Amino acid sequence: MSILGQPLGVQLMAEVWECDPEKLNNLKTVEEIMVGAARKANAEIREVVFHRFEPQGVSGVVVISESHLTIHTWPELAYAAVDIFTCGEHVDPWIALENITQEFNAEEINVMEITRGMKNLKRLRKNKQ
Amino acid sequence: MSILGQPLGVQLMAEVWECDPEKLNNLKTVEEIMVGAARKANAEIREVVFHRFEPQGVSGVVVISESHLTIHTWPELAYAAVDIFTCGEHVDPWIALENITQEFNAEEINVMEITRGMKNLKRLRKNKQ
Repeated sequence: MSILGQPLGVQLMAEVWECDPEKLNNLKTVEEIMVGAARKANAEIREVVFHRFEPQGVSGVVVISESHLTIHTWPELAYAAVDIFTCGEHVDPWIALENITQEFNAEEINVMEITRGMKNLKRLRKNKQ
Repeated sequence: MSILGQPLGVQLMAEVWECDPEKLNNLKTVEEIMVGAARKANAEIREVVFHRFEPQGVSGVVVISESHLTIHTWPELAYAAVDIFTCGEHVDPWIALENITQEFNAEEINVMEITRGMKNLKRLRKNKQ
């Protein structure tokens, strides 16, 4: 094993711009897109919670066995903040994100990929004691 | 307004280590801590979803009007991955995080603070057309 060890999970933080505002503002559409993306990424869905705000915007979470997908939309700015946090080898967060951005007709995306739970050398040594 | 504009939200990504493993493994405790932290940060709670995994670990989400709090715990590593995403001026994500780390008796924390939804100059100009 390398000094850096292995992460427990990976998180995509996506700034999704220039989306279809009508889709971003429709609770059912947003939920279907997020749940569909989780399925396509091979995640096991545990809980689905979505909420529509007045006058606009949708927030939602898909809790999966492998962590979560979240979305918050600002239809008036054609923007969605999307996070996809996955653990394990059998789920690919990029497939979920690809699907989400396609479904919202996004024209501009910025993504950061961040590892979570890096068990570094100090901690590995400690655990071996 | 500056060239960079204003973000729509702020997200804390916290790597929380050396927590009390028993607390991390107790569904009710984790839920109470996360909901309590949301309240103390002055958030308006919309939905609360927590799930316990076998043989260990808890995942949970608190959907708030101002976005969300999430947690995934690995009791066997004394580790929790915590995200706190808030919008608006009246909720302070740092108060929530402070509370969460205290309640889990965390001894080591790494946090990144990330702005979400930066409306940059190009976009502001476009919207004015």
